[in-house]
Amino acid sequence: MPIRTLVWGENVHEQKNKIVADNYPEGMHNQIARLLASDGNISTTTATLQDPEHGCSEAALAQTDVLIWWGHAAHGQVKDEVVERIAKRVWEGMGLIVLHSGHFSKIFKRLMGAPCGLHWREAGERERLWVINPGHPIAKGLPAYFELEMEEMYGEPFSVPEPLETVFVSWFQGGEVFRSGLTYRRGAGNIFYFRPGHETYPTYHDDTVGQVLRNAVNWAFNKDRYPQMLTAPNTPFDEAPEQIEERGPKLHHGREEGFR
Amino acid sequence: MPIRTLVWGENVHEQKNKIVADNYPEGMHNQIARLLASDGNISTTTATLQDPEHGCSEAALAQTDVLIWWGHAAHGQVKDEVVERIAKRVWEGMGLIVLHSGHFSKIFKRLMGAPCGLHWREAGERERLWVINPGHPIAKGLPAYFELEMEEMYGEPFSVPEPLETVFVSWFQGGEVFRSGLTYRRGAGNIFYFRPGHETYPTYHDDTVGQVLRNAVNWAFNKDRYPQMLTAPNTPFDEAPEQIEERGPKLHHGREEGFR
Amino acid sequence: MPIRTLVWGENVHEQKNKIVADNYPEGMHNQIARLLASDGNISTTTATLQDPEHGCSEAALAQTDVLIWWGHAAHGQVKDEVVERIAKRVWEGMGLIVLHSGHFSKIFKRLMGAPCGLHWREAGERERLWVINPGHPIAKGLPAYFELEMEEMYGEPFSVPEPLETVFVSWFQGGEVFRSGLTYRRGAGNIFYFRPGHETYPTYHDDTVGQVLRNAVNWAFNKDRYPQMLTAPNTPFDEAPEQIEERGPKLHHGREEGFR
Amino acid sequence: MPIRTLVWGENVHEQKNKIVADNYPEGMHNQIARLLASDGNISTTTATLQDPEHGCSEAALAQTDVLIWWGHAAHGQVKDEVVERIAKRVWEGMGLIVLHSGHFSKIFKRLMGAPCGLHWREAGERERLWVINPGHPIAKGLPAYFELEMEEMYGEPFSVPEPLETVFVSWFQGGEVFRSGLTYRRGAGNIFYFRPGHETYPTYHDDTVGQVLRNAVNWAFNKDRYPQMLTAPNTPFDEAPEQIEERGPKLHHGREEGFR
Repeated sequence: MPIRTLVWGENVHEQKNKIVADNYPEGMHNQIARLLASDGNISTTTATLQDPEHGCSEAALAQTDVLIWWGHAAHGQVKDEVVERIAKRVWEGMGLIVLHSGHFSKIFKRLMGAPCGLHWREAGERERLWVINPGHPIAKGLPAYFELEMEEMYGEPFSVPEPLETVFVSWFQGGEVFRSGLTYRRGAGNIFYFRPGHETYPTYHDDTVGQVLRNAVNWAFNKDRYPQMLTAPNTPFDEAPEQIEERGPKLHHGREEGFR
Repeated sequence: MPIRTLVWGENVHEQKNKIVADNYPEGMHNQIARLLASDGNISTTTATLQDPEHGCSEAALAQTDVLIWWGHAAHGQVKDEVVERIAKRVWEGMGLIVLHSGHFSKIFKRLMGAPCGLHWREAGERERLWVINPGHPIAKGLPAYFELEMEEMYGEPFSVPEPLETVFVSWFQGGEVFRSGLTYRRGAGNIFYFRPGHETYPTYHDDTVGQVLRNAVNWAFNKDRYPQMLTAPNTPFDEAPEQIEERGPKLHHGREEGFR
Repeated sequence: MPIRTLVWGENVHEQKNKIVADNYPEGMHNQIARLLASDGNISTTTATLQDPEHGCSEAALAQTDVLIWWGHAAHGQVKDEVVERIAKRVWEGMGLIVLHSGHFSKIFKRLMGAPCGLHWREAGERERLWVINPGHPIAKGLPAYFELEMEEMYGEPFSVPEPLETVFVSWFQGGEVFRSGLTYRRGAGNIFYFRPGHETYPTYHDDTVGQVLRNAVNWAFNKDRYPQMLTAPNTPFDEAPEQIEERGPKLHHGREEGFR
Repeated sequence: MPIRTLVWGENVHEQKNKIVADNYPEGMHNQIARLLASDGNISTTTATLQDPEHGCSEAALAQTDVLIWWGHAAHGQVKDEVVERIAKRVWEGMGLIVLHSGHFSKIFKRLMGAPCGLHWREAGERERLWVINPGHPIAKGLPAYFELEMEEMYGEPFSVPEPLETVFVSWFQGGEVFRSGLTYRRGAGNIFYFRPGHETYPTYHDDTVGQVLRNAVNWAFNKDRYPQMLTAPNTPFDEAPEQIEERGPKLHHGREEGFR
């Protein structure tokens, strides 16, 4: 069974800005989905901010193995309830790939527990992404580096938690650097942040970017779900793995639930 | 100048439950503060849930280098606004030490971005904490292991992010294990989670527990603050470290702010 | 193409000690290989200390995707030249799974750069391995914990580097704990240390242990090799990605090699 | 008591190469020591390759809290026995700071267990070091970035283990990036790798470089020693923390030592 991948696009600038519309006439989400098509192991659907429940209903997420998130101008319009639903699914094992300006999306900030700040410049400068971890599955088949002739600059410090592993570091023409590919696990879910993708440039028409995304979907995928990651059950003394006697003063009795 | 440490106690069970009141007649927060007193480098104040703004006003946090947090029954009563204020201070460099049932406090879950679940049992069983990282500053002066004759059991999986380093792992009489001392950095702030401290047992009268807390305060302390961790400033092209020309299509103009 | 797995066994106690011989009449390496057989994606061969070049010739390693290593009494007899050859292959991308007393094997110590010490006891006590990272590929399909009724105890501190991720933590009847499943990457190669496997007990007849090993082989596998991880090439100024002029004083000229 | 810091310099190019001799007329080691002098908490001595036992006798190391290592042309002349002695001291708690071309020193490769490769270019280009972890003690008091107008380029992938934390990332004029400040712990010892310091350039006359080194010495310092990190003692069953009975077949008897 293929990896069921849901590509989420904010779909705002495509509707308002001629440059973005010309760049992505069918929307960024559809172009990102197209980049995944060459991998026969991936099946894709798309969703946008404008869909009911932003296209992220319980039913939709139940059918999703990996969620890809691109947002920028309308982070604030994403409903908190949908953000919590996605977080919960990630903790249970759904993969999540956050792109570019998604560093400030509610879902990324929610899962990082950190400011996720950086500094930036929109000047169409050259970005060169170096593969610093060639053996990582997300770097599979990539050259030593690849270039995007025009990109928005993101500069360090990127105030995110220390990742499990860093896959890419970017060089920018204007003199900055950025950790452009970072992996995390939250609960049972794999998370990958990938930097490139400013909407006024043709980044998601780039083949190497496509390879990174296909690799990332394969890396983030876990077919199992782990709802037990969300709970804190009482294990009564008479069900302990080793036989023990109950002793001492108690707040809780028998099998009652704890405080939350 | 000493490390200004604010000990926060929920102060609920001390008022309602005779066992806890007898155990901690002046409240857990005051007993925890007392454990810090033997370190001349630490000055302490206390705050409780019942104080205005839970004792965590902007002014109070501005005078705090390290915050110690103990809560259990009333996590839900802590105001979201105060939680956000504390998170912000941590990101700016304030240290945070979260104790025991604080694994489910709003502030810990906020900073972890993870469920922070576990399984538990209140049966007065023996806990033995092994120092697995003897060279870590938080383990300074500790024996190979120390025991708490009666404690609540917390069992793995503890659904928190992979820590920077693990300092303690606990053995429980009933057959479970738990990573009992975990370090994190979020933004510029150091965070330490320390497991023991169930309110019906005399844990905060234990000298070795005191040593751990004193070590942790010293480890978490950073006298500087880094408000820049919270921002995402535009760096215009003519202020780039390397001289570049502006080119390509643009969404933003001049020095305007980005989307959030 | 299946994952070509080479199971290396020291094969010393099987020849000298009646208990071990009865436990593993065809040698531990053959029994470990048998545990892998139920995974159709894995093909196995075996090698022992007594084979020419310990069965780890250049040719043998060139045909190996994942190497499993069990040794105990004869670490010192493994030739340094073979150890270096294996280390090099791991750095180039071969997976390595080190079992039990292999914590003190030359190859594990070589790749960890650490003492790899611990404390131990051979008393046939119960070990219970808790899955602390249920979403990790090595934990796939496992229950919350599994038990080995008789095992040698290994106790913390285990003086190894902080791992990428911890998968298992063991509880021992005698009161100790141990991080029993640890992942590392060295160069391009994935490394997994798995604690159980004392030769006088029937550990490698246990089905859950087999599941862990099969999972670990699949996790450690990378079909590509990265010989560039071993080099430090000079990149002359006229081949730099960005055009620069050579300036300043120089030690090296043109394309000459650096010092090693 | 001050932090007793031993600055080790290879002292080869200073004797052979006029540029280096002019740059560092008293040797690089003495100039590096001078950079530490403004910190009243640090006392320094120096040692070179040419000294008996390279100045790293047991007695010298017993008086050393932090060792700083600069080597380049003569890594191969450092005696293996001295390398093992230093490794052992690091595991026991001595701090180690490895500079620049020391990435290929025997001691760094020994402690990393990895190839420590990279690619390089000697063209006097500009390096800009970005502080990516402003709250880290090694970044204390530093600006957002600092520049070295002429440096040797080191480019990724730097084939070292994933660090505990990354402190600096460098931008190079020719288009490369490099993780220039990396922290590790091996045994009880703190290790910091710091990239800059090519001998034909005036790097160790730079004040900010001095600040980094002073910060690093303070961070790496641990006054305690942990010789137990090197051992693997037998803990007989009758000394177990919990009372157990001995059972099952045995290889070892009573208090005998294990195999190594």
